[in-house]
Amino acid sequence: MQDIVRVDLAERGYDIVIGPGVIAQAGARISALAGRRPVVVVTDDTVAPLHLPALEASLEGAGVRRNGPAIVLPAGEKTKSFAHLEALLDDLLGRGIERSTLLVALGGGVIGDLAGFAAAVALRGLDFVQVPTTLLAQVDSSVGGKTGINTRQGKNLVGSFHQPRLVLADTGVLATLSRRHMLAGYAEVVKYGLIDDAGFFAWLEEHGAAVCAGEPEALVRAVTVSCAAKAAIVGQDERESGRRALLNLGHTFGHALEAAVGYDDRLLHGEGVALGMGLAFDLSARLGLCGAEDPGRVRRHLDAIGLPTRLGQVAGVTWDTQELLGHMAKDKKVQDGRITFVLARGIGQAFTARDIDGREVAAVLDRAR
Amino acid sequence: MQDIVRVDLAERGYDIVIGPGVIAQAGARISALAGRRPVVVVTDDTVAPLHLPALEASLEGAGVRRNGPAIVLPAGEKTKSFAHLEALLDDLLGRGIERSTLLVALGGGVIGDLAGFAAAVALRGLDFVQVPTTLLAQVDSSVGGKTGINTRQGKNLVGSFHQPRLVLADTGVLATLSRRHMLAGYAEVVKYGLIDDAGFFAWLEEHGAAVCAGEPEALVRAVTVSCAAKAAIVGQDERESGRRALLNLGHTFGHALEAAVGYDDRLLHGEGVALGMGLAFDLSARLGLCGAEDPGRVRRHLDAIGLPTRLGQVAGVTWDTQELLGHMAKDKKVQDGRITFVLARGIGQAFTARDIDGREVAAVLDRAR
Repeated sequence: MQDIVRVDLAERGYDIVIGPGVIAQAGARISALAGRRPVVVVTDDTVAPLHLPALEASLEGAGVRRNGPAIVLPAGEKTKSFAHLEALLDDLLGRGIERSTLLVALGGGVIGDLAGFAAAVALRGLDFVQVPTTLLAQVDSSVGGKTGINTRQGKNLVGSFHQPRLVLADTGVLATLSRRHMLAGYAEVVKYGLIDDAGFFAWLEEHGAAVCAGEPEALVRAVTVSCAAKAAIVGQDERESGRRALLNLGHTFGHALEAAVGYDDRLLHGEGVALGMGLAFDLSARLGLCGAEDPGRVRRHLDAIGLPTRLGQVAGVTWDTQELLGHMAKDKKVQDGRITFVLARGIGQAFTARDIDGREVAAVLDRAR
Repeated sequence: MQDIVRVDLAERGYDIVIGPGVIAQAGARISALAGRRPVVVVTDDTVAPLHLPALEASLEGAGVRRNGPAIVLPAGEKTKSFAHLEALLDDLLGRGIERSTLLVALGGGVIGDLAGFAAAVALRGLDFVQVPTTLLAQVDSSVGGKTGINTRQGKNLVGSFHQPRLVLADTGVLATLSRRHMLAGYAEVVKYGLIDDAGFFAWLEEHGAAVCAGEPEALVRAVTVSCAAKAAIVGQDERESGRRALLNLGHTFGHALEAAVGYDDRLLHGEGVALGMGLAFDLSARLGLCGAEDPGRVRRHLDAIGLPTRLGQVAGVTWDTQELLGHMAKDKKVQDGRITFVLARGIGQAFTARDIDGREVAAVLDRAR
């Protein structure tokens, strides 16, 4: 049970290998890609005890050259910082890396984004391989080449487009994820259905529980459909001048919620996206763009799975509508002061919209408590 | 008296406008490029009092939108650091920049490299315009898209390839350069003759003094030929997988010399390149690749202009051959531990070579005191 999705970007195209046990193939696949080039593995202190031994055994078994031991960073969003980027680059340069060095990022979105960004700028660009270990990273952040760090002004405001050379999405490792993090990743899976695949959303309504329970076939299918959806969009619009913005469904709201919370564990990224997708459908319905029943159908599925769908479900946070609007105005996708929203004409019919009246947005936020 | 050199990189191609008074056209040219998009100017505290008023007057005259006042950084190589990159990005993000924001880098190589790198990574990529104010920047660093910062391991070890949208090389501003900095930039001009244009080198032997004295026609010709030479090479090999390495003639030695000095004012980059070009011809002659008379001809011209050609001319530095070899081994262009040298079969006949015996390199360094 293994699928391969190709991200079609001419000479920068690459494969996403999806299935249980893919990490055991890492050595052979990286060796085929990199030959005798030296490899440096970057991971975090949550993932290292769980999955680093399997990766290292596979690399060793295939005779992959290593430049030093794995670099193990602290787990958590705070690692996606300037300070950790500088320390990581200092470690890499201190090892005497060359342009032929291949970085392997083993971990969730934080490690993939940070190590990917380090790969983008070390010696003006190293090749890198993503080995995503969370559902969120497997279906979203490891695919498409967005890398970066957070600053005090917001998330991912500094970074590069730097495509990996290979993505190894081992669905077997997701068994070590907490249910909360599994569900957070699942929110991004739902997103692909909502963007342009109503049939996939209907399939998720039936099989989402199996996906979140880690049932192998359902999980591989969900990851594969998600990666294929993202690959198709990225292949059309690598640098987000158009269609790629659809991938931000739920994210304009979601990022504002995360910013208001301060990016701590009270609200995981995927939980923010789940809330944000509900809000995006609320706004679409309020503006008469989609049927009045659509927001309810979206929320019913997210609720059934166990994702938050009301702001009041986020414990310990008092929401301020004006503050949230302020965070939205600082989004990267703002152009001429106008926020881009991803709205929908229905399930699977998302589109981007500007010139949305801030009062309508405020009303939607006020009602979502 | 104005020339335009086109850097031919498909959709990322751009013009280099060369001549006295080009800054006075900056507003019109940037307005034609950027329309109503907001502009942020980045410069340093040496250049600001000299040339910022003229640039700002031109922008204002053309009705260019500005996002805040110019950002003025401390002059000097130490500004090409992680700390200054972070501070610059913080300033930019604090202004609420959008992806449509255009950065204008007014200054020498330090400002161009740092602001260009900030443009590469802010919001994952902003457009930028180079307005180089030193001869070195006009003929070298502002053209070709290499951006970056230094780290404690060496120069330019962190950065991006990020092409400017336009380069405005005002040869008139070079009148404000000290003679020492003018000569340092001139070393890079000589380099283009030595790489593949013996006719240009011969022209420089005759007219180099006029170029360095700032005689307008000679200066425009020297800058134009240099930019055209660099543009041709960059157009063939943007990311330095092959021919672009020729631009490093004199730089493997030069960077090692700069590193040994500690990148302070005892040895300017161009002075290191001048010494390095002499050493590269010494090594070529020692290996029997070029005629025994060629190193002498190179040095005679550099000497006549007033550039250093012997290591002993660098005041206050004690050279250690093993230390210099150590610095060379850390060069970005090292592959499989083998240093790439740019050597020559004669004036205007440079080529890249690996597998050079370190003892030959050491012998050349020992004899160049």
